[in-house]
Amino acid sequence: METISFARGVPAPECLPVEELGDCAQAAVARDGATVLSYGSSSGYAPLRDWIAERHGVDPARVLITNGSLQGMVFLAERFAGERVLVEEPTYDRPLKILAAHGVETTPIAMDDEGLDLDALAQALRSGRKPAFLYTIPTFQNPSGRTLSTERRHHLAELAREQELLVLEDDPYGLVRFDGETPPTLFELEGGTQVAYSSSFSKTIAPGLRVGYFVLPAGLEQELEALATSTYITPVLIGQATVFEFLRRGNFEPNLERVTALLRARRDAMLEALESELPDARWSRPQGGYFVWLELPGGADAGALLERAAASGVTFVPGADFGGAPNTARLAFSFVSPDEIREGVRRLAALVREPLAV
Amino acid sequence: METISFARGVPAPECLPVEELGDCAQAAVARDGATVLSYGSSSGYAPLRDWIAERHGVDPARVLITNGSLQGMVFLAERFAGERVLVEEPTYDRPLKILAAHGVETTPIAMDDEGLDLDALAQALRSGRKPAFLYTIPTFQNPSGRTLSTERRHHLAELAREQELLVLEDDPYGLVRFDGETPPTLFELEGGTQVAYSSSFSKTIAPGLRVGYFVLPAGLEQELEALATSTYITPVLIGQATVFEFLRRGNFEPNLERVTALLRARRDAMLEALESELPDARWSRPQGGYFVWLELPGGADAGALLERAAASGVTFVPGADFGGAPNTARLAFSFVSPDEIREGVRRLAALVREPLAV
Repeated sequence: METISFARGVPAPECLPVEELGDCAQAAVARDGATVLSYGSSSGYAPLRDWIAERHGVDPARVLITNGSLQGMVFLAERFAGERVLVEEPTYDRPLKILAAHGVETTPIAMDDEGLDLDALAQALRSGRKPAFLYTIPTFQNPSGRTLSTERRHHLAELAREQELLVLEDDPYGLVRFDGETPPTLFELEGGTQVAYSSSFSKTIAPGLRVGYFVLPAGLEQELEALATSTYITPVLIGQATVFEFLRRGNFEPNLERVTALLRARRDAMLEALESELPDARWSRPQGGYFVWLELPGGADAGALLERAAASGVTFVPGADFGGAPNTARLAFSFVSPDEIREGVRRLAALVREPLAV
Repeated sequence: METISFARGVPAPECLPVEELGDCAQAAVARDGATVLSYGSSSGYAPLRDWIAERHGVDPARVLITNGSLQGMVFLAERFAGERVLVEEPTYDRPLKILAAHGVETTPIAMDDEGLDLDALAQALRSGRKPAFLYTIPTFQNPSGRTLSTERRHHLAELAREQELLVLEDDPYGLVRFDGETPPTLFELEGGTQVAYSSSFSKTIAPGLRVGYFVLPAGLEQELEALATSTYITPVLIGQATVFEFLRRGNFEPNLERVTALLRARRDAMLEALESELPDARWSRPQGGYFVWLELPGGADAGALLERAAASGVTFVPGADFGGAPNTARLAFSFVSPDEIREGVRRLAALVREPLAV
């Protein structure tokens, strides 16, 4: 029996525009090989930096492109080592590990179905040291799939300004929207002074190119650029130039539409399967992204369930890995096919219904 | 007046096989796109890992491929944070900065024309804490261009075994040899138990691809792989797959021969120019690599000279930046043309002869 993975938060192979990216890589090297193949700016490939800057309406000097956006989080953790950072609960586990490895104290802030709980945030700001920044994934959050409501976005932007709180808005999933209205980003609402923005082309083009980026206050960009220089001199320009060529050819929007349709069918399959197979559970209903957040009924323990699930040919990540409650689980619908999703949820539901062997 | 740079330790643009690498990038994506464009092993692209392992006669599990080899030094510094590391004096400045940033105590070991002074090394081993490792660039060293003699290589390999001293042999320039016999690597002599080996394709193919690698004791590879996972999940596979395609096509040796010829002409131009323009100075006579180490006559200060040199249209890096004496300078012959080298040395010599304005 083939294991069905709801654990892998990665795009299905058919989401990757393989042939086109091969052409783009060749064209990028042919067009600008002397730059792409040599050492260059530590902040990334200049034409892509310009493209990102224009998209976000900032000076290119504020843009840092890194070998995947996680690498930028490492630079932030180095820069703010030993300080305090506010994070969502639950949140993406890798940044938590990076922050901890740099002696950063993290304060988890509760969330509900509308995203970050701003009262809990205000309380965390009143107690303890002034935080270096708030790390938030307001749209189709990893792991919960939740999206911060528009009203709360306005309030959070205001709060960031008033309290001079640096907010890092991590937004890798925002463009992968299946339905509903696109809310304004915190970066747009606040104006980009207190809100820094990060994203990547992993979900919109291909993760293996490892092209993440940050739009930062100018001074902070310079500090992180110095860390980038000390770490790898120059990021891998061929990946960045391949992305730029893809953008330059006008492939971004049509590809995003194609990818979104592939993922929408998967999201639909998962929500329908949960509805029919696990009516007693609760789950998030994301309008985009990769993840559904499942709350198991009756205080079931997701960690214990996972041990049994592996034997039944289905896997997921327990919510506790992200700071969630013991009965929560992250189900990624991005990697598997709609048929596999239906079968995987059936396997999962059978396990949930089955009384635990004692 | 165009400034002639002896500061840039990078290959001249004509060293880069641009067209061929464009083809290789396309072919690599076409052949193996689903792997290259997605997340994969944190240790690097498997076929390239296998190639490197075979070249060095080790299990692929001992090979870590990083986004440039400096990134691997960051992982080593994280792993051995707060410990003691022995380094050559002078040595490549970037690792020194990385080690210092991780609280590593570095002990500089003297060198002479035959490379590392093994008596000085033995003395450093007798005093102070047991070092985590010795960092050495035994062939065409950056910055000095010096090469460890074969006799000393045998002794150092023996010493590493006897004292259970981990040695990191950094060898990015070894294959870029213009003349003379190739000595055995420390890794070969010792057998790869106590000696780890690092190199890159920056000097043999192209630096912008950022493909560096480490051959490590298996346990250490696993520890660094975990750090790589936490830092960037997967390195940038498209650069590594492009390198692999280049190797697979049999382009490596012919390209290396072409690059070596281009660089040999530059080395020759620099040595001849120094001979005729600066007969009172001393300098290294490297049989390969990128650098000549200049010792200015009469206690001249290279830092002060650099300030005047910039105005005269020539630059270099003062040896003090690498831990060298005040009268030393690193002259890179890799980036500029033979004609520029002759003119640059003329400009430099005129400044050295010119009495200092007081």
